[in-house]
Order: sequence, then C-alpha cells, then structure tokens
Amino acid sequence: MNVEETANLIKQLRIQGATNIAIQSVKSLGEEIRNLRWSQREEVYELLNKSIEVLISSRPTEPMMRNGLKYMNQKIGESNWNNPSKLNSVVSEIETEILDIFNKASKNMIEVGARRIQNGDTILTHCHSSGVTGTLIKAKKQGKKFKVIQTETRPKYQGRITANELVKEGIDTTMIVDSATRHYMKEADLVLLGSDAITSEGNVINKIGSSQVALAAWEARIPFYIVSSLLKFDPVTISGVYETIEERHTDEIWDDPPNGLRILNPAFDVTRRDYIHGLITEGGIISPHSILEAIHRHYPWML
Amino acid sequence: MNVEETANLIKQLRIQGATNIAIQSVKSLGEEIRNLRWSQREEVYELLNKSIEVLISSRPTEPMMRNGLKYMNQKIGESNWNNPSKLNSVVSEIETEILDIFNKASKNMIEVGARRIQNGDTILTHCHSSGVTGTLIKAKKQGKKFKVIQTETRPKYQGRITANELVKEGIDTTMIVDSATRHYMKEADLVLLGSDAITSEGNVINKIGSSQVALAAWEARIPFYIVSSLLKFDPVTISGVYETIEERHTDEIWDDPPNGLRILNPAFDVTRRDYIHGLITEGGIISPHSILEAIHRHYPWML
Amino acid sequence: MNVEETANLIKQLRIQGATNIAIQSVKSLGEEIRNLRWSQREEVYELLNKSIEVLISSRPTEPMMRNGLKYMNQKIGESNWNNPSKLNSVVSEIETEILDIFNKASKNMIEVGARRIQNGDTILTHCHSSGVTGTLIKAKKQGKKFKVIQTETRPKYQGRITANELVKEGIDTTMIVDSATRHYMKEADLVLLGSDAITSEGNVINKIGSSQVALAAWEARIPFYIVSSLLKFDPVTISGVYETIEERHTDEIWDDPPNGLRILNPAFDVTRRDYIHGLITEGGIISPHSILEAIHRHYPWML
Amino acid sequence: MNVEETANLIKQLRIQGATNIAIQSVKSLGEEIRNLRWSQREEVYELLNKSIEVLISSRPTEPMMRNGLKYMNQKIGESNWNNPSKLNSVVSEIETEILDIFNKASKNMIEVGARRIQNGDTILTHCHSSGVTGTLIKAKKQGKKFKVIQTETRPKYQGRITANELVKEGIDTTMIVDSATRHYMKEADLVLLGSDAITSEGNVINKIGSSQVALAAWEARIPFYIVSSLLKFDPVTISGVYETIEERHTDEIWDDPPNGLRILNPAFDVTRRDYIHGLITEGGIISPHSILEAIHRHYPWML
Amino acid sequence: MNVEETANLIKQLRIQGATNIAIQSVKSLGEEIRNLRWSQREEVYELLNKSIEVLISSRPTEPMMRNGLKYMNQKIGESNWNNPSKLNSVVSEIETEILDIFNKASKNMIEVGARRIQNGDTILTHCHSSGVTGTLIKAKKQGKKFKVIQTETRPKYQGRITANELVKEGIDTTMIVDSATRHYMKEADLVLLGSDAITSEGNVINKIGSSQVALAAWEARIPFYIVSSLLKFDPVTISGVYETIEERHTDEIWDDPPNGLRILNPAFDVTRRDYIHGLITEGGIISPHSILEAIHRHYPWML
Amino acid sequence: MNVEETANLIKQLRIQGATNIAIQSVKSLGEEIRNLRWSQREEVYELLNKSIEVLISSRPTEPMMRNGLKYMNQKIGESNWNNPSKLNSVVSEIETEILDIFNKASKNMIEVGARRIQNGDTILTHCHSSGVTGTLIKAKKQGKKFKVIQTETRPKYQGRITANELVKEGIDTTMIVDSATRHYMKEADLVLLGSDAITSEGNVINKIGSSQVALAAWEARIPFYIVSSLLKFDPVTISGVYETIEERHTDEIWDDPPNGLRILNPAFDVTRRDYIHGLITEGGIISPHSILEAIHRHYPWML
Repeated sequence: MNVEETANLIKQLRIQGATNIAIQSVKSLGEEIRNLRWSQREEVYELLNKSIEVLISSRPTEPMMRNGLKYMNQKIGESNWNNPSKLNSVVSEIETEILDIFNKASKNMIEVGARRIQNGDTILTHCHSSGVTGTLIKAKKQGKKFKVIQTETRPKYQGRITANELVKEGIDTTMIVDSATRHYMKEADLVLLGSDAITSEGNVINKIGSSQVALAAWEARIPFYIVSSLLKFDPVTISGVYETIEERHTDEIWDDPPNGLRILNPAFDVTRRDYIHGLITEGGIISPHSILEAIHRHYPWML
Repeated sequence: MNVEETANLIKQLRIQGATNIAIQSVKSLGEEIRNLRWSQREEVYELLNKSIEVLISSRPTEPMMRNGLKYMNQKIGESNWNNPSKLNSVVSEIETEILDIFNKASKNMIEVGARRIQNGDTILTHCHSSGVTGTLIKAKKQGKKFKVIQTETRPKYQGRITANELVKEGIDTTMIVDSATRHYMKEADLVLLGSDAITSEGNVINKIGSSQVALAAWEARIPFYIVSSLLKFDPVTISGVYETIEERHTDEIWDDPPNGLRILNPAFDVTRRDYIHGLITEGGIISPHSILEAIHRHYPWML
Repeated sequence: MNVEETANLIKQLRIQGATNIAIQSVKSLGEEIRNLRWSQREEVYELLNKSIEVLISSRPTEPMMRNGLKYMNQKIGESNWNNPSKLNSVVSEIETEILDIFNKASKNMIEVGARRIQNGDTILTHCHSSGVTGTLIKAKKQGKKFKVIQTETRPKYQGRITANELVKEGIDTTMIVDSATRHYMKEADLVLLGSDAITSEGNVINKIGSSQVALAAWEARIPFYIVSSLLKFDPVTISGVYETIEERHTDEIWDDPPNGLRILNPAFDVTRRDYIHGLITEGGIISPHSILEAIHRHYPWML
Repeated sequence: MNVEETANLIKQLRIQGATNIAIQSVKSLGEEIRNLRWSQREEVYELLNKSIEVLISSRPTEPMMRNGLKYMNQKIGESNWNNPSKLNSVVSEIETEILDIFNKASKNMIEVGARRIQNGDTILTHCHSSGVTGTLIKAKKQGKKFKVIQTETRPKYQGRITANELVKEGIDTTMIVDSATRHYMKEADLVLLGSDAITSEGNVINKIGSSQVALAAWEARIPFYIVSSLLKFDPVTISGVYETIEERHTDEIWDDPPNGLRILNPAFDVTRRDYIHGLITEGGIISPHSILEAIHRHYPWML
Repeated sequence: MNVEETANLIKQLRIQGATNIAIQSVKSLGEEIRNLRWSQREEVYELLNKSIEVLISSRPTEPMMRNGLKYMNQKIGESNWNNPSKLNSVVSEIETEILDIFNKASKNMIEVGARRIQNGDTILTHCHSSGVTGTLIKAKKQGKKFKVIQTETRPKYQGRITANELVKEGIDTTMIVDSATRHYMKEADLVLLGSDAITSEGNVINKIGSSQVALAAWEARIPFYIVSSLLKFDPVTISGVYETIEERHTDEIWDDPPNGLRILNPAFDVTRRDYIHGLITEGGIISPHSILEAIHRHYPWML
Repeated sequence: MNVEETANLIKQLRIQGATNIAIQSVKSLGEEIRNLRWSQREEVYELLNKSIEVLISSRPTEPMMRNGLKYMNQKIGESNWNNPSKLNSVVSEIETEILDIFNKASKNMIEVGARRIQNGDTILTHCHSSGVTGTLIKAKKQGKKFKVIQTETRPKYQGRITANELVKEGIDTTMIVDSATRHYMKEADLVLLGSDAITSEGNVINKIGSSQVALAAWEARIPFYIVSSLLKFDPVTISGVYETIEERHTDEIWDDPPNGLRILNPAFDVTRRDYIHGLITEGGIISPHSILEAIHRHYPWML
C-alpha cells in the first residue's frame, strides 16, 4: 500500500491504534521509496520529505509514527547508496530494523507489565490499548487468576473491543459506564492504561477520561500505571511545543441534537505525571519524571 | 390514580425525578384513603400502612417520597376524625399542606440558587435535575448571561433532557461525554448538581458519576454546590443505616454483550461532604456538615 | 455626630475597623432620631430607613454595622412609643442594649482567644485586627510569654499599627513582608486573624492576603483561627447573595505608574472554611461549618 | 466505696475506661453524701464540692466523669430537701437518673455502630474501647460475618484486651504491631475507634497513635468513625481551654534504659475532625463539625 | 573593570540579576589575569584563586557566577601556556567560550518558553526575571495575544521593573500587591517565574514569596514553570550543603520602626519541586526531579 | 567462615543489617572459592553459582548482598585465570574491590548526610540504620548541637540499639513509642531513615512503620530523607518483579496469644517516593525519581 492510501486509511480510522499506525506508515514509506524511479539523490530526498509530511498530517497526535519515520529518514540519509538497487536493499534493511525495534519494545513492555499482575488482583482499565490487553492476556497465559473492570469508553465504545478480547481469553471481566470509575476504584488493586503520547515533562496524553481515572486512582491510593513503549515519547515537547489534542466529529456523541446545542468531542486528555505510579516500558518500569533521560539512553536518534 | 397504579408507574420509570415521585405518591395516598369505605378507625390505619409500604417499595432510594408519606401518616394519626366525611376533609387538608411544603421548598431553593449565578459565569452540570435546570432558567430570566457545560450522562442520556430544556430557553449550552468532565473543569466557575438523598453525615447520593465530578471540582478548586431541598434528607441514616444504591438492568449499557461479560449498572454513587461547597436549599445555603441541625430547625416532624 | 457626618468619615477611612464602624453608626443613628422633630410615626420610620441606607452605603463589606442597625430598626418598630419623649428614652435604651451586646461580644471573644495562647508559643498574624491584638495583649497581661510574627500588610501597611500596639505592650514582635509568610510559617504554633464578614457556608472575608496565609498554615498543619464576633456574620449570604469585595484606589499601590499599566486593588479576599481550624467567638470556639446554627442560638434577631 | 477510695483506684488504673470511671465516680459521690451526718445545707454543699474536686483530680482527661458529677451537683442544688432522709432519696434518684443516661447512651451508640457493619467487611481498630468491642460483638450476634484487624497498642498492650474479647466471641481477629497500621489500611473497609474526649471544634482526644491511624485512613479513603457517647464532650474547650494530655511513667516503655536517655510517654493524641468520617453516638451518626449543636440539643445541662 | 571594583558593585546591587552578575564576574576575571605581570605559573594560579574568592564572597546565592568562574579556572588549568602572550590569548578564548555558553543558554531557554504561551493566555509572574520578561516579549513579537498579572514584589518593588519592561512592549499588564496572588490565581493559565539557584533535589531558590506563589498555583492546578538556565544549578548541593539564604537590611521594609520591633528580611525562599510543573531551560522543558541527570548531560564540567 | 555457615548466621539474624550481610557474604564467597580444589573451570563456575544461590536464599529482601555477589560473579567470569594460584589472587583482588566500593559508599553517604544537619535541629528517626546513626555521630563530631527523637520500633525494639549508640556519643536523645510519631512530628526539622531496598520507580522498602513515619512527615511538611547507598537498589524491580516482603515469626509480637488469634508480622513496608524529599547517597542527594539514571551512571555493572 502506498503512502497516500495509507494516510487516507489512517484519516478514516480504518487503520488505528498508535502502534498499528506507526507500523503501516513505516511500511508504506519503504514501499514508496522502493517503487521510485530516480536518477539523482535529490529526487529520493524530495519524495522522502513529501511522503513523511503526507503521513504525519493524517493524524495530529501520533508521535510513535513520527518517530518511526524520523528513524527511516535519518538512516537513509546516513547510508551509502548510489544506485536504485543499493537504495532498495538499504531501505528494506532500515525498515526491518525499525519494525524490529517496534516489535521488541512491545514484547518487552508486555513481559514487564505481566510481572506486575498477581494472583487475586483486580485490574481496572479504560478504553482499548493493545499494550494493556497484551499484558493481561500474557498474565492469564502464565496461569495467574485476576479480575478486570473496564469502562465502555464513550463516545466510540472502544471498551467493547477490550471486553471482546478479554472475554475470549477467559478473563473474568466486568464492564461499567465511564462515570462509575470512581465508584469501583476501591475494588481495584492496580490501574493499567495505555498512552498515545508522552511529553518531556512526563505527562501522558491518552483517550479522553484517562486523567479522570488517574485522579480517582490517586485519591484512593491505587497504583496507576501507563503501559507504553518509550517510542510514544514526543520529542517536540522538549522544545516547548504543546501536544495537539485532536477534536473529533460531534456525531459521535449525538447525531440528532437540538438546534443551538454545541457539542465538544476531544479525543484525548492529559494525565499529570504526579498521578502516574510508573511507566511500564521496554526499558522496565520507570518514573515518568525521568522519561527524557530514559530516551537519551534508549533512543538517542529520536532527539 | 390509586396507590398501586402509581407504584407501578414509578417502578417503570414512567414517573421519575425525586420531587415528582414524592408529589404523585402523596396524591395517590390521599385518593386511596378518601375512596376507602370504612366503619372502624383500624381499617383506615391498616390501609394507610399497607399503601405506604407499596409506594416505598416501588424504588429504594427515594427519601423525599418517604418523608412526604411519613408526614401524612403522622398528621392523620394526630387529627380528630370519626366519620368518613371528616376524614376526607382532614386528608385533603394534610395533602394540601405537604404539597405546599414541597412547592415552597422548590421555589425558595431555586431563588437562592439563581443568586449564586453571575454574569459571565460558566456552570457545569451532570445528569438532569429539576432544581438545577430551574435555577439556570430562573437566572436566565433575571437577565444574567452565562454558559452551561453539561454531560450526556450514560447510560440513560439524561443529559439530553437537560440540553433540551436549556437550549429551549436560549441558554448557551455545550454537551460533553462524561469522561471529558475533568478536561473542561478548569473552564467552569461553578458546578451545580442535584441530589437524590442526603445522609446525616452530610454526604449526598446522586446519579452515578456525581462523585467523580465533585472530585474533579475539588482538585481544581471550583465551588461545587448541591441544589437540593432539605426534604431529600434521609432520617434513617441517623441511626446508622446505609442508603441503598439501586442496581439497574445491564441492557441500559449494552444490549448485546459477549457471553461471559459481567456488567454492573448502579444508578447512584456517594459524594463526600468534603467536596461539597454548600447545599443550596429552601433554608438558604448551608454547609453539608450542619444538615442534621438544619432538619431539626426546619422539619422536626421528619425525625 | 449625625448620620451624614459619620458616613463621610467612614468613606474616608477616618473611622475604620469593623467594630468601630458598627459602634459609631449605631450612635449616630440614635442621635439622629433623638434630634428629629416629628408629629407622626411615619416621619420617624422614614428617617430611620433613610439614615440606615446612608450608613450602609458608606462601605460595602460591613455586616456588623448592618446587623447593629437592623437591631435598632427592629426594636424601635416593636416598641410602644407615641410621643417624642417616650421615643427618645426608647431609642437610648435600645442603643445601650446593642452597644452592650457589641462590648460583651468583644470582651468574651478576647477571653476565649487568650486561653488558646500558651507559654512558648509563636503566633503569626496579618493586617490589624482589634480582636487579635486584644487577645495578644490579654495573654501578655496574664503573664504568658510568647512571640508574634506579623506582616507589614501592603498596600496600607496596617501591620505597622499592629506592630506599634504590640511593641508598646512589650510583646516580642517580628515584622516580615507579606511574601515571607510561608517562609516563616513553620516557626508558628498558631495563626490568629480577624474577620470582616462570615458567610452562611462558613467562609471568612478578611483583608487581602488572608486566604494566602490560611493556605500556608494549612499546608504546614499549623492551627489557623479567626478571632471574630458572631456579629460579623452576614445574613444575606444565607439566601445566596455574594459578599461584595470592595475595590480600592490604585494610588495606594503605585501613585506614579507607567501609562497603560492596569492596577487592581481589592481590599479583601475569601478564606475557605476548610483552612479554618476554628472561629474564636463570644460563644466560644466553634467550627466554621456550624456558624449558621450558632447564629440561630445567639442572635436570632439577625435572621 | 467512698470518694477517696474511688479516686485512689482511678489513679492506680485499677478502675479504668472513661465510662467505667464515670459510673464509679457517680456512685461514690452518691454514697458519700448519703453517709454524711449534717444539720445545715452548707455542710452538704461543702462535701459535694470537695468530693467532686477529689474525684476530678484523680485523672486529667476524663470529661465524661466531670459531666456526670456536674449533673449531680446541679440537680442536688435545684432540688427541694431539708432533712437527711429527703436528701437521701433525692440523691438516689439523681444517681439513678445519670446512670440511666450513661447506660442508654452506651446501648444506643452500639446499636447505631452495629448497623454500619456489613457482611464481608474488614474493620480496623486501635487500643481497647468498650464502645468499639460492644459494636463488633453486637454485629456478630446479629449474624454478620466480618474480620477485624487490631493493633497491639504499645506501651500497655491494650490491644490484647481487645483481642481476648473478640476471639472469645468467635470474631475473626488479626493482631498487628502499631507500625503496621498503614501497611494493612488498604485491606480495611471501615476504621472504628473510641474516644476519651471531644472538643468544641470537633477534634477527638484518644489513645496515643489514634491520629496516626486516622491519617492513614484518610490517605487511603477508608471511612474512619469514632464510636463515642456525646457525654465525652468536654464543655471547657468551648471557652478556649486546651484538653490536658496526660504524661505517664516512662517505665511503661523501657524499664532499664541507658543513662541519659529521655523517654516521653503521652497517653493520648488529638485527631483532627477533618480525618473523622463521623461520630457514632447515642444521637445517631453526626459530623464532628456539629458536635456543639448536638450537645445543645441532647445535654443542655452540660453547658 | 577589575575584580575588586566588580565585587563592590555587586555588593551594592549596582550590578544585579544572576545572569548579569555572572557575565560581569567572568569579564573582570579575564581582565584581571590579562593585566597580571608574571614570571611563574604559580603567580597566575594564586591570582586566579584569590580573584575568584573575592568575587564569590560578594553575594552568597549566585551559583551561575560560581559556575562561570569554575569553568574559567578549569580551562586555564588544562591549557598549555608558558608565556604571558599565550596566556592572554588562552584566557580571552575561554572567556569568549563561557560568555557564549551563557548567551546561547539564555536565547534557547527564551525560545522554549515562548512556545508555551498561547493566544488568550493569562500569565502570572512575581518579581523581575530577565528570563521571564524575555519569554513574554518574545511571545509578543511572535504576534501572540495574552495578558500578564504581576506582583509589585516588596520590599524592593522589582515588580515595577517588570511592569515598565512589559508595558513598553505593549503587553497587557496588571499589577497587584503580593498578597493578592492567590485571589487572582484562578484567572491565570500559566505561572512563569525565574530562579536564582536550583538544588540537586530539584528545589528552586528564588525571590522571597516565590514558594507562596507556587503553593497557590498548585492549589488551583495552574501549571507553574521556572524559566531558568541550567547554569543556575548549584553543584555544592549535591554533597548536602544547604543553599545560603541572604538576609538583607531591614531598612528596605521600614526605615523608621518603633524601638524594640525586630524585622526579618530574607531575599529568597525555597520552592518545592512538587509544586513545579517544569523547568524551562536551554535543554528544553524538564522535570525538576531529573535536574542532576540533565546537568551530567549538558554541563559535565560543572560537577 | 564458609558460605553455608554464613548463610545460617544470616537466617538466624546473628549477622544482620543490609551492609553487614553484604560484606560477610562477599567474604565467605571469596573464601569458598579460594578453598576449592579444582582442575577444570566448570567446577569453579558450578561452585560459584551454587554458593551464590545458598547466600541469596538466606534472606529475601537483601539487594545489596545480591549486588555484591553479582559483581564478584561477573568479574570472575571476565578475568583471565587458568590455574588455582592465579584464580586465588584474582578472587582476592575482586573481593577487595567490592569491599572497597561498599566502604567508600558508606563513608561518602555519611559525609553528605552530616552536612544536612544544622545547629539547633531536631532529627526524628525510626528503627536502627547504621547510615543514620553514622550520619548523626559524624555531625556530633563536627561539633553540631542537635536533638534526636527516635522510636522504640516494635516488635524487636531496634530503637534501643539506636538509643544506646547515640546516648554513648553524648547525643541528646528521646525515645517514644512508634504510635507517638505523628504527635511529635511537628517538633522535628528533619526525618532521617535507612533503607533495605530501592525500586526502579523510586520507592523505598524499609522496616515496618517507615511508610507511616513518611506519611506523617509529608502531612507536616517536614523533609523526609532516606540515608542509603545506591547499592541497595534492586535491579530486578526494573523488569516488573515486586520486592518480596519478609513475613517473620508471630512470637516476636505475642508469645502467648489466645487460641484463634491470627498475628501478622511483616518485616518491611513500602514508602512512596512522593513522600521522600531526597535520597542521601554516595553520589550526593538525589530525587528518588531519578534513581534508575543514577544507577546507570554509578554502577552500570548492576544492570
């Protein structure tokens, strides 16, 4: 699939989930370059830049995709190649490298997360995160017995995706409305949520409502963890840029509202690092306060 | 409408709203007694007790209804009557008295509430409360300019009732999903919610999610008021009884869930008095900590 | 001094301090009425109403004055008099009564306050309050040894009045700038402040900066007391009316500011009841949450 | 037993527990007066005053005893008697009255407390309180199933008394060291403690360590209740007097300390009202903020 | 200007502001060495050490100056030079290097800061900081529309310097007294303050009152940022040394106090890292918790 | 002493204290290997692995021992040796290296700690920690005047060891029961505790009750420091493993409990990083949030 098609599917949410979007973007960029017929290096760079821009502008809050594309861009720039065939093999190699980085990050993070779950635990989650469901399923396969409480997650009901995945694996799962989170918080031993972006100060951008779950967990002294690859770190926040919060269509909330009613539908909110017990990452469990240093150690190319 | 019919309509939510339920219950009890053909006082007391029980058991969390019926019961017991015609006029008088108490309470409370709203304010609310919408509409009619942010209130979308009432009056209204409450809290100047029951310690039972709204308001130092008649006070909580929290049908949340998924659907949660800036009542604005003393002054017959 | 002269001196701050203003207003009202040459009762009531309005409008945040005038108004209305001589003696009697209430309140409150001070204590205060300096001087006269830390209190430097009063009595006194309050909070054992008004919810209106002192005391777990007569309670707040916060002239802050600079100079701020350990009143030490009930017991005529 | 003997046994802790001390003091005062051979009323009043002083000075932190003795003193003063036989019957009557007040208070308070315990609860307690063990045993007899976690309570190990009482009734009981309270707090559903004295601001004086238990409960959002008769209210705190905290012998902590080591052994500490969910009293569950008003309603003679 | 003259001007506050002091100290040290007539290396080192001591002792809380002088000291020690002319060029080179480091740090930090300001924001600040006013002016030049609320900053009224700078640039500016900070906090979207020193634990030393502003911001959930170069880090705090807090002359507060009044006038206070949302530095926005690691990455020579 | 003997003494608590255990384990491992008669390298590695396992399993919560043994294991593996005599000298060298690391860490940490103590301070501590008593004794030898408040530390009364050490050095020391910690917290200027283990998130495992002391310090805004070598860091926590909390014999609490009483006796609890002002380590004072980065800089071999 080429870059334009991929960008379109992302826009339409037919490709979704931060990791998924990052993988497909990387693949389409690889394909696009390999398919280019070129004679001068400049043509390659031009395509590279343009393609990256097309992909990035498909959704505003996707640092993992941006980090993956940046990796490819850098590595292609640093490599020696002077003919199409050499470029093709270089690009394929780099593509494999970054997909491998994505893959290992995900696997390691889930292994770390699964160790945090103990027999008898009740875990509360919100929305759908492949890191969180991966962690839960891993723990289940390790023979652990635990319960899950999960929200339905208005307006798009991604909680139903979570419910389907967990019930299929035989995990004891209970769904509640988003508003009931605080009411059930005292029954939880652990809260696990995913992440769409992490800022240089250690705050986490995730599905609308996450900051409310975190607040309720903090009030009740229940450990609140973010299961997230370090690849979700957004380097532009270092220099003071605010993470953009996507505003989505109001139809998702009410398709037939009375005339004159305004509806606001932000996709994400910001969870303060002070409410986050730890980030469960491929580099182990870290304090959100040390995120920037962890990036310097793990992914210096990101900076 | 007789007692049994009324109890059925309450069960089916066709009569709803704490004040409405209280009014209809009182009326049906009056009618029931007036229609009774009796020869001995005992028959009257028997009917009275049985009817009250039927009404009370129609919904578990309705102290205002219970307080209204208790008033009638007491007053009938204290009155002099020895023939059906005398009883009829006594009952009608008492019915009028208590409906008048309900009515004045509501009117005064709304007047107090409206004074708290100032030009330029943004008021956040959750669910539907006739006390809150009454207050907002009153303030609007006084010529005040303000904005309202209100939640949709899953699972029954009572926020849409609120939206319709406010938009009809030309009030600047914005709807959000329940999960976005904390995200928009910093734009609010005031939070106004209703109440289903108030306990002797000063805690408030209201629509599921209310305690979460209160927590977010407290975190952001936004005054959080409960607009509620003192008639919602539940006297049994004085003696240590817990307020029952109604558990409703899971269909309201998901009518086609995967096999094995458990769904919990409590109608209410408990908001801690520490998060409540004040109770806006017919007796003025009071601290929730002094609720019991306020009842002793205003409605000693309740105790 | 007649009513108009008194109102003018209040406006110019030449009569100041809530208690002082209340006393002078009551006296001028008494004098005004006694001096009136009248033939019909209506003339008296007319003067009474007009005079009260003149006095009340001299400063917006003076509930103790308003309560005193209300007392006179009520009592004159309830009394039997039908000739000037009888009215004169009635008015003098009522004036004496209310001045006596003022006087006893002040005396009792200071006695209660002085008992809270122990040998070795360090007391922190802000601005000037005759209740607070009265309490400190009383404790000193009881032979207690303690230290005082007090702020200078910009913009009018009322802290200098406090400093002068305390140093004259030989009390060990240290002055700091307002900004240094939190820095020295950990050395305090007790914080004592006065009050200009108390609301029905139990919040206290006092000199700008008081809420900041309270916040710092709360952070450091230092008991924060308000030394205030119950006569500072403002009955209109029961019905939802906000206490007005007087905005004063910007010259007090900077008399030669650059063109285009805006300066804001509110005289008071609101201290949340949650930061107030107790109200030290003529009725003993009470929780701010129970203020309304205390008024019902002590001064029912106020309501 | 006469007054002097009783006072001695109290001093030696051979009579202990606030309620027990109050009962025995009242009884000994009754006996003392009945045994007096007198001819003039003054002799009676003299004995009365002297005896009360002897009893009061036996332990400093016993408001319930002081309230009981005050009751007798007042009632004897108000009664008509002019010969020894009449005085004897008057005193016996008053003694019965106050013992009856004590008894009913205790019984009602335990009934209220037992209603707060639900099947499946874990209740945490500290030290020994007959109100708390009474509540737990009552709930057990009502057929409720619950667990208790209780501290050993250094230095006098009163937790062992609690353990013995509960285990004897077949209640599932777990003992921990005082330091482990916070560690196990998250397993509790409810904290129940007794009280030695309650101040006019709503703070509670109880066994050393109680404020630490309250802090840990507050941190973890676990409801913390004080089971205490209103008779523990200390009226002198209204007027600003601090409750005295008894300092006990250091042998209780270490009987063979190295030379030069200082040991401090206060018997009580002060729990802030903000950490107290409610007072479970004979007058129902109330907010600690409204304690003074509750006393005005229930025991006006105390003030 | 030679070292002694510079030290004197610093003492008299005629050179002030942490960055300014650092620059002038570095320059004077360079000049001093270049002017020295020497024959043996030891003479140079002696002068170097003595001069640094003179400069350092001119004001106690100036880590940026100390860091600059340390840089020069180290680099001169490491360089090859054996005749005056070589030394002169070496010193000039090093001086240029460190001034360049200062300059870039300032420029980058302001760029980062300006990105945090958004159209419609209200920014609150305290005292005068060239980093903060630089940031605000930069944002204004980028065409952003925002408002500033700033304190007058007793006792030296540095807020007037801030006011003059901002008003000159056409920035919408409002001045308040220091005590009014909490009162207006709810109108702020962002708080920006400077810094005099940062400790290894991440706490910030700044103008007296800063910790109070931070506390009020934290209470109201308003992001509180420190705009500060990493060069303000004080390496001696790593080893446990406390930052000295300069105590200034009492005349600054009251030049004619009553006899016996003590006045305290500390120049700075300590703001806890927990109240600091982020440090806006030349290395981007970081959590104060990671300050030590950031220094290890950016300025290893400082340690 | 060989490995088995050492492991036994550790089990019986006859060797105790994290540092002591680490030293003795390292020494016994060195001796064991030097005593081995071997012909093939595999025999050495086998012994090494078996011995390490024996030592590690002697107590569950001893990361410093585990880190020391890991160091020896790694270094022996990396070294060149092919005959017993060479191995002997290699092992002795490595043993000396790691003991030297232990020794310097302890010395540096104590020097840093002593700088935090100032004349006039009151320091509160809990249990016995050689780092804390070392720090206090060092400060005393530097001529500083300060007071210590310390808990008795049930159930094993390690506070008595602390008392003996401090009193012997002439330090002004006061002992209290564990429950009195919060009561005396307001008299402390500083809290110093030791540590048994530090996790990757920055939490500290220490003697039961430590988290309660930390909570009380946090409530009262008293700086709470952990005096601990970085060698107490537990690397397995990075990967999500929970630190094991040793459960000890119930006899330590009550040797003659009533039948049916359950007693729980955990040796440690977990103190949240948010309550920890700083870690006083051989690498200076650091925020607990940056612990993982500090380990990367100081002891990369640990990871």
